[in-house]
Amino acid sequence: MTRGNAPRKISHIGIAVQNLEASIKWYQDVLGLPFEGIETVESEHVRVAFFTIGESRIELLEPTSEESAIAKFLARHGEGIHHIAFEVNGLTERLQQLSEKGVRLIHDKPKRGAHQMNIAFLHPKSTGGVLMELCEPVKSEEKE
Amino acid sequence: MTRGNAPRKISHIGIAVQNLEASIKWYQDVLGLPFEGIETVESEHVRVAFFTIGESRIELLEPTSEESAIAKFLARHGEGIHHIAFEVNGLTERLQQLSEKGVRLIHDKPKRGAHQMNIAFLHPKSTGGVLMELCEPVKSEEKE
Repeated sequence: MTRGNAPRKISHIGIAVQNLEASIKWYQDVLGLPFEGIETVESEHVRVAFFTIGESRIELLEPTSEESAIAKFLARHGEGIHHIAFEVNGLTERLQQLSEKGVRLIHDKPKRGAHQMNIAFLHPKSTGGVLMELCEPVKSEEKE
Repeated sequence: MTRGNAPRKISHIGIAVQNLEASIKWYQDVLGLPFEGIETVESEHVRVAFFTIGESRIELLEPTSEESAIAKFLARHGEGIHHIAFEVNGLTERLQQLSEKGVRLIHDKPKRGAHQMNIAFLHPKSTGGVLMELCEPVKSEEKE
């Protein structure tokens, strides 16, 4: 893979929390990060709070039901870092290349995430224990 | 805390690995991140590999002795994300403010880290399970 096609930036760090309002208060008042707002992602059974940090974001993830992957994570590990996301070019082609290199994918095709992004997760068994998301802004012709 | 004093960017994400060379190969050849080099931090008993991603870095951390905090982390959790680091202004004053707000600090004064940075860790008991580092570039008059 050439340097020109390297992941562009850390899109966000996803952090699992028990109580979104209490955690928002901490990140905003104690750490001093600018709070952007909350989005509910029904398909993932989570409420997400967004904070800006440089070119990246911190996303706090609170489960809205027991079915949520975040609820299961909290039950097993407690609060903490859940995943990291890298913004890339050419997500579809990159997933195919990763699959050809033997990387186990959770999503073999991009799905729609929050903030007008296409996203896909790589399996931590293939990434040295790190739940890794790749994402790419939705092109304007794809937007609903 | 005012918006003007918000943490500036994600400095790096620190990831604990068993075998630095194997992990470097994966991040470079499979993920496609530009590899910057390796530094041994004797005081922490780690070898660290650095990768550039946007304005941030990925740091892979391999223990060089059983005394290393990374060796203990690997024994308990296996490979995975160890800590995240935010670059801030006024690290010394900020640590004092955090302490006054009841945040438990691992280092109550900055210590010297890799890459000409002053660093300090916050205790995960105070941060919702996240091992969090704050760091600030060493001012030129402080440099050795």
